[in-house]
Order: sequence, then C-alpha cells, then structure tokens
Amino acid sequence: MEMTLTQIANRVDGEIIGDGKTTVHGVSAFDQATPNDITLAGLPKYLKRIDETNAGAIIVPDDFEGSSKILVRVKNPQVAFAKIIAIFHPRPKTAPGISANADIGEKFICGKKSTISPFVAIGHNVTVGDRTLIFPNVVIGDHVVIGDNVILYPNVTILERCRIGNRVIIHSGTVIGSDGFGFAPDGENYVKIPQTGIVQIDDDVEIGAGNTIDRATFGKTWIQKGVKTDNQVHLAHNVTVGENSILVAQVGISGSVSVGEHAVLAGQAGVAGHLEIGDHAIIGPQAGIAKSVPSGEVVSGSPEIPHRLWLKVQRIIPRLPELKKKLGEIEKRLIKIEEK
Amino acid sequence: MEMTLTQIANRVDGEIIGDGKTTVHGVSAFDQATPNDITLAGLPKYLKRIDETNAGAIIVPDDFEGSSKILVRVKNPQVAFAKIIAIFHPRPKTAPGISANADIGEKFICGKKSTISPFVAIGHNVTVGDRTLIFPNVVIGDHVVIGDNVILYPNVTILERCRIGNRVIIHSGTVIGSDGFGFAPDGENYVKIPQTGIVQIDDDVEIGAGNTIDRATFGKTWIQKGVKTDNQVHLAHNVTVGENSILVAQVGISGSVSVGEHAVLAGQAGVAGHLEIGDHAIIGPQAGIAKSVPSGEVVSGSPEIPHRLWLKVQRIIPRLPELKKKLGEIEKRLIKIEEK
Amino acid sequence: MEMTLTQIANRVDGEIIGDGKTTVHGVSAFDQATPNDITLAGLPKYLKRIDETNAGAIIVPDDFEGSSKILVRVKNPQVAFAKIIAIFHPRPKTAPGISANADIGEKFICGKKSTISPFVAIGHNVTVGDRTLIFPNVVIGDHVVIGDNVILYPNVTILERCRIGNRVIIHSGTVIGSDGFGFAPDGENYVKIPQTGIVQIDDDVEIGAGNTIDRATFGKTWIQKGVKTDNQVHLAHNVTVGENSILVAQVGISGSVSVGEHAVLAGQAGVAGHLEIGDHAIIGPQAGIAKSVPSGEVVSGSPEIPHRLWLKVQRIIPRLPELKKKLGEIEKRLIKIEEK
Repeated sequence: MEMTLTQIANRVDGEIIGDGKTTVHGVSAFDQATPNDITLAGLPKYLKRIDETNAGAIIVPDDFEGSSKILVRVKNPQVAFAKIIAIFHPRPKTAPGISANADIGEKFICGKKSTISPFVAIGHNVTVGDRTLIFPNVVIGDHVVIGDNVILYPNVTILERCRIGNRVIIHSGTVIGSDGFGFAPDGENYVKIPQTGIVQIDDDVEIGAGNTIDRATFGKTWIQKGVKTDNQVHLAHNVTVGENSILVAQVGISGSVSVGEHAVLAGQAGVAGHLEIGDHAIIGPQAGIAKSVPSGEVVSGSPEIPHRLWLKVQRIIPRLPELKKKLGEIEKRLIKIEEK
Repeated sequence: MEMTLTQIANRVDGEIIGDGKTTVHGVSAFDQATPNDITLAGLPKYLKRIDETNAGAIIVPDDFEGSSKILVRVKNPQVAFAKIIAIFHPRPKTAPGISANADIGEKFICGKKSTISPFVAIGHNVTVGDRTLIFPNVVIGDHVVIGDNVILYPNVTILERCRIGNRVIIHSGTVIGSDGFGFAPDGENYVKIPQTGIVQIDDDVEIGAGNTIDRATFGKTWIQKGVKTDNQVHLAHNVTVGENSILVAQVGISGSVSVGEHAVLAGQAGVAGHLEIGDHAIIGPQAGIAKSVPSGEVVSGSPEIPHRLWLKVQRIIPRLPELKKKLGEIEKRLIKIEEK
Repeated sequence: MEMTLTQIANRVDGEIIGDGKTTVHGVSAFDQATPNDITLAGLPKYLKRIDETNAGAIIVPDDFEGSSKILVRVKNPQVAFAKIIAIFHPRPKTAPGISANADIGEKFICGKKSTISPFVAIGHNVTVGDRTLIFPNVVIGDHVVIGDNVILYPNVTILERCRIGNRVIIHSGTVIGSDGFGFAPDGENYVKIPQTGIVQIDDDVEIGAGNTIDRATFGKTWIQKGVKTDNQVHLAHNVTVGENSILVAQVGISGSVSVGEHAVLAGQAGVAGHLEIGDHAIIGPQAGIAKSVPSGEVVSGSPEIPHRLWLKVQRIIPRLPELKKKLGEIEKRLIKIEEK
C-alpha cells in the first residue's frame, strides 16, 4: 500500500510542511521508522528529538515549527496517527456468512455481512447485527442480543440474555455473564443465591482479553458507552461503569460498585463492595479502595489516601528505621536532661 | 409464573403475616421490587426502611414485627430468599443427550439425562454422571471422572485424570488440571518437573470464571466439599482448600498451601508457598500472607498482621509526614534545652 | 513400568549406593513414597530426615553419606529427579494427524507426526512444525508460525501473525496476541490505536494457564528463550522478557517494559510502563515497581525499595501505633522541662 502525504493529510485534516507528493508505504514508531514510513511526534520528548527519526514524514501538533523534515501538522496528533494506522492496517476482511461448522440454535436472527466462524455455538433466540465478526469457538447463550460492527475474538463466552451494543470489541478468553458470587450462609454450608440478572454492554466499549464480568443478582451489571478495559479485569455482579472510564489490567471491582464517567483505575487496583467512584476520579496502581471516592479525586495506597499525601508518605516509609532510631536517641537525650 | 404466599411459605417453612392468598409473579431487590414481586429484608438496614419497598410481600426474620406490609417470617431470611429465587428462576432445561457435534473418545460412560453440547471434546475413558450439563466448547481430558448434577459452563477445560464430585458448578474459562509451576535449575536453564498428580474437586463446590487450578506434582490438589471460589482465582499445585472455605476474586495461593475449613480469603489476597491457613481464619483484601495463620485469626496487610493492629496502623500511615515533622521539631527544642 | 536402579542411574549419570538390581515402579514425594518408588532428598531438610522415607531408593547429592538406604548419588539431584519423573510419566502418546473435526484454512503447512485435535480452528497460511500437539478447541489465526515439539493445551488462542518457537508449551485458556491497550483521547472519547505488531515466543518457553500476552503496537512483544510464566500472568504490548526469566502467578507487566535475563518476578507483582528490570533482578511478591530496577537488585514493597531495607521497614510498620504514642509522651516530657 502506498499513499501520498496529500492523500493522508486529507484524511486527518492536516497541513503538509514539505512536498505533498511524497509517498509513504506504512506507519511505524518514532525510533523504528524508515524513510518509507510516516510516524508520530506528538509529545515534547519526541519533538525535541525530531531530527533523529528516519521516518519519511512526521505527524506533529499544528503549532510545531523548526524542523527540515516533512511534517503533517494536525490538531490532535495522537488521534490523527491512530486514524492513519487504521488506514494502513484495516480490519481483516473475512468472508461473511455462517460457517457450516457452526452450531446455531432456533430463531437465530443474523444481520447482513456478518461472519459466524467454525465451532461457534449459538443458543436459541439470539440476534446478531450487521457486519459483526464472530471468531471461532465463541459461545453465545440463549436470548443474547449483539449489535452491529461488533468483533468477538476466539474463545469468548457470552451467556444467556446478555446484551452487547454496537461497535463493541471483546478480546479472547473473556467471559460475559458468569454468575455473581452470592451465597447465603446456612449453618456450616452455603446456599447459592441464583443470579437472575444480565450484563449489558453499551456501544463503543472495548473489553480486553481474559476479563470476567458477572451478571447481576437482579437487574444488570452495566458497562456504559465508550468504556475500555484492559486484560484480566474482574467486574462483580451489579457493578456499573460509567461512560468512557478506563480500567487497566488486573483491576478487580466488587459487587454493586458504581464507577462514574471518565474515571481511571490503574493496574491491579481493587475496589470493595457497594462503593461509589466519582466521575473523573483517578485510582492509583495496586490501590485498595475501602471508601467511596468523590468526583475528580486522585487517590493511591491500600487503603487509599489522597495521591499527593501518598507521595509524601511513600518517601517516609523507607526512612522509618532511621526515624525509629532517631526517636530512641531523642528519648535517651531527654532522659539525660531529666536526670539532671 | 404465579404463586400464592401460602405456597411460598410452605416451601421455606415460613409464617405469613397478612393474606396468604396474595399472589406474586417474581422476586426482586428491595428497592426495585414492584407489587408483583416478593423481596428480602434480612438486615436491620432494610428492616428499618421496610415501608419504603413497593414489594407485594417481604421475607423477614421470624422475630420481626411492626409493619403493615405483608410479611413472610422465616428463621433464615437469606436462605429462604435464595430458595424462592430458585423457584422462580429454575435451572434452564436443556435437551439431554450427546450432540452430534461433540467429539467423544473411547469408552465414554455417560449417565442418564446428561447433556453433552456441541463442540465438547471428551477424551478416552471418561465418566460423566447423571443429569450433568456440559455447555459448548468444554474440553475434558482422558480418564476424567465427573459426578451427578454437575454444570460445566462454556469454554471450561478439565485436563486428564482430574475428578469432579457431585453438584459441582464450574464457570466459563476456568482451567482445572494445568501443570503446576515446577522447574529444576540446571545452570542457566530450567528443566521442567513433570506434574504427575491431579486435581480433585469434591461435592457442592462452585468454581468461578477464569480460575486456574494446577494439578499436583505428585498426589492431588484438593478442593474440598462446599468450597466457593470467585472469578480469576489461582490455586497452585498441591494446594488443599478445606470444606466451605471462600476464596474471593483474584486470590492467588502458592504451592502446597493448606487452607482449613470455613476460612475466608478476601479479594486479591496472596499466600506464599507451603503455609497453613487455619480453620475459620479471615484474610483481608490484598493481604500478602508470609507466615502461617492460626485458626480463627483475622489478619490484614502485606505482610499480614492482626487485623485490629492493622486498623490502628492504617490510621497512622497517612499521618507519617506530620509525625516526621513533629520529630524534627522536638529535636530542635531538645537541642535548645541541651545548649542551655 | 519397572526399572532397575542401574537403568535409572545410567540415565542420570548417577552412582548407586546399594544393589543396582533393585527395581522401582514409580516416583513419589519424600513423605508419600512407598518401597516401590524412587524419591528425592535434594535439600538438607530432607537429607536430615532421610531415614523417615519409605522409598525404595533416594536421589541424593553426590557428596551425601550416612544412610543405610539405597541411594543414587548425582551432581544435580533436582534435575536428575525431574528426568526420572519424565521417564515414568512420558508425554501422552496421541495419534498424529489432522482431525476430521478440525477446521483448516488455506495453505496450511503441517509437519510430520503432529496432532491437530477436534474443533481446532486454523486460519489461512499457518505453519506448524513436527511432532507438535494441538489439543481440542485451540484457535490459531492467519499467518501464525508454530515450531516443532510444541504443546498447545485446550482452549488456547493464538492470534494472527504471532510466532511460536520450538519446544514451547502453552497452557489452557491462554491468549497470545490480543490487542495492546492503546487509545488516543479525542475530547470525551477514545480513538482506538490499531495494534499492528505481533507476539514472538522463542524456543523452550513455557506459558502458564490463563495468561494474556498482547501484541505490540508496532514491532513485537517478545518472550525470549527459556522464559517460564506461571498462571494468570499479563504482559502488555511491546514488553520484552529476557532469556530464562521467571514470572510467577498473577504478575502484571505494563507496556514497553523490558525485563532482562534470569530475572524473577514473584506472585502478584506489578511493573509500571516503560521501565527496565535488569538481569538477575528479583522482584518480591505483590511489589509495585515504579522505577527501573538495576541488574542483580532485590526489591520489595509498593513502590519498591531494596529488599533488605524492606525487611527492616516491615518490622517497624506494626509498631507505628507504639512509636506514635512514644512520640506523644516524649513531647509531654519535653514540655515539662521547657516549662521549668
């Protein structure tokens, strides 16, 4: 594939500094790019080193000046670069249709140009929208509804009655709609509390590999529009995650937690049950959230404290042996004075 | 579905306060229930608000008084409610039999009324009990034995020779019998130590989604009767988990650990190798267990300390910057005195 | 199966103390072994108790003396024992060939004596080497290359273009080549950054169950020769793990991290993005790595500090309430003096 910079600039609303007839054949990272590639210098650390890349053209912010390289100036370099990568690496074309090796239940409604791959097992009364791509060995339970332009990667499981919106991507090994963890103590034993609800995943959500998202006891576990989860995220029953929130790898969220919009939970963080994480809150890596976090707060630690305080605390922790020693010395000096 | 309160009360040994001919059509949560639903007010926080629910009837403890609502008084409200939910939401009926799209090895013994779904691969010399439900894309290795009334959800893997008891539920994506993590250092390299044992899962165990339970090096990794694990739990080789213990999501237990009966390990806790966790011990969330925990102990932190001590410690940690400053001031004041 | 000690000693270059015609029928752990078994006493704790095992023969270090038991003395007892276990528990023999129930894409190149099991879905232009064993329900994407003597356990997913070396073992439920977690903020929304790279896994790597290893944005996520990962390990895009490094269960490594050779990351440790973990570094369990770790360093804590310092710190943390109280008392005594 080959494109001129003029063609590229048109696609991302960019301004070319240099010869628009220059062609590129691919995209690459700043330090690996060849003269055939277009690359990105969005952040100051790359802009400072801009003459070090071998790329044939560079996406830069629209106020950047001062390089003899061929530039494409854009308003949002990262977004423009994402779009250019997508041009050079389009979603793989798969033959639409239902594989003869799939197993399809009764009353299946399948949209146009969708692909149902081999060894996909689809229950009864399932609906799949248009241009949806279901990779091999996916299992879809009874009464599931899946939207348009969805991608379900291999070995995904979506259990009965769950609802998946449009343009949702779910990566391999992920389970949607497993039972919530609910048991009633009965003397020595536990009686299972049937989990009667569903999981609802709204439009434009991307769920990483190896996630487990439990169905609600009643009602729904709800992943709202634009949420992105990394790999191995666990969401318990009746959790709500608000629009455009980000859950980084190995985060675990307990039952009935409500996460607001545009929140960020960093890797391996955990949230105790029934809490509220406010809009735009940021939770640090490995944090253990024991109380609700108001909107806009940044917290770290286990249990969590304000992040700015945590930064001070974590500088003192390694000095505890020294402080303890100092305290002992001070006491000795005090005793000396007291004895006088 | 419709039931009278008399019918319901008979099923849970309850006493009706109000008209037993009242009918309900479903079950729901306290705050979402409609007049057609029966709901639960088991805890004081709900009993205090009992007049706020719109439910048509309410399960309450047998000593509860003081509401004009229609009540069903029972000894154990949570257990009664679990049973009522199960009445309204019975296990889905599936057509028994072996799918023509399953792949079955030699000498398969299949009990009565069991379901083997499409794309289930069963090895040689496998035994499955009665009324067991195996969802699509489950893989079962050679010489596996599975009991009666078991449910294996989609994409579960059970590897060779493992043994699964009666009434066991295993959720999607879980792996039973992967190799333990054992290697012998040989200069720069590692030589694999073959893992020759099995995993044995006893009756009434429920294993969450995305668990990994390794087979023993020799002998067995052993999950005893009534154990419940949440999602993404990892159990290493030769672990034993005693009866009715609870492992919350993302817990990781290292090799040869023995967990007693009725222990609770909260979410994201980790246990180092070869330790013993006593009966009825409680391990806090994100705790890192570095020494054995005696029976009945409650511990938190990483490494763990008694939970009551941990509560004090965690109040002081955010005050460390202040304490350090105070220590500096005291020293200055001391120097002033010393100089006199 | 039955072997004489002479036969065994020949296979592991051992010296027999006792009658070489003695036969054993199996291998077992020190405390469970019967007179028909050979066992291992490699560590001092077992050598001290050597007369307590019922084993018919015992593997010991080549300088061990002082037992009336039948011994096989070897240079590296653990490695010798691993080899002996492998003799008694050889890799299961499976019928080579491609199952009629597999789904194979165009231009598939399959080596000699390899096994493609039922419900394996293989994309287009895939190459598999000789004597490779692919268990049921594995999915392999387009243009994947897999070496010789590889084992892919059930329900493994290997996505397009990834490369797997020789003698690699990948356990069940693991996902190789899921998209890296990359999004460009665009106002309220996130635009997906296509992940165009691959995962390359070199020879002699073993990947545990339930791992998720993301493909690179550009270039490759790279697991080098001899690396061993335990279960539920997460490796983000563009991570490199150097030769013979060990990643214990539930470790999470963020994007673009480089781990050196022979490093060890203990269970549930997490590493922030773009860091370097040096050769032979050791990372403690549950550690949270916030800065690069030089070669040979041993670190613990979150954020990490030198392990020896951490040992001191963790002894002081439970004493914080006492230290705080002491500080208060000292101040009071100081005030008394100041008032004079």
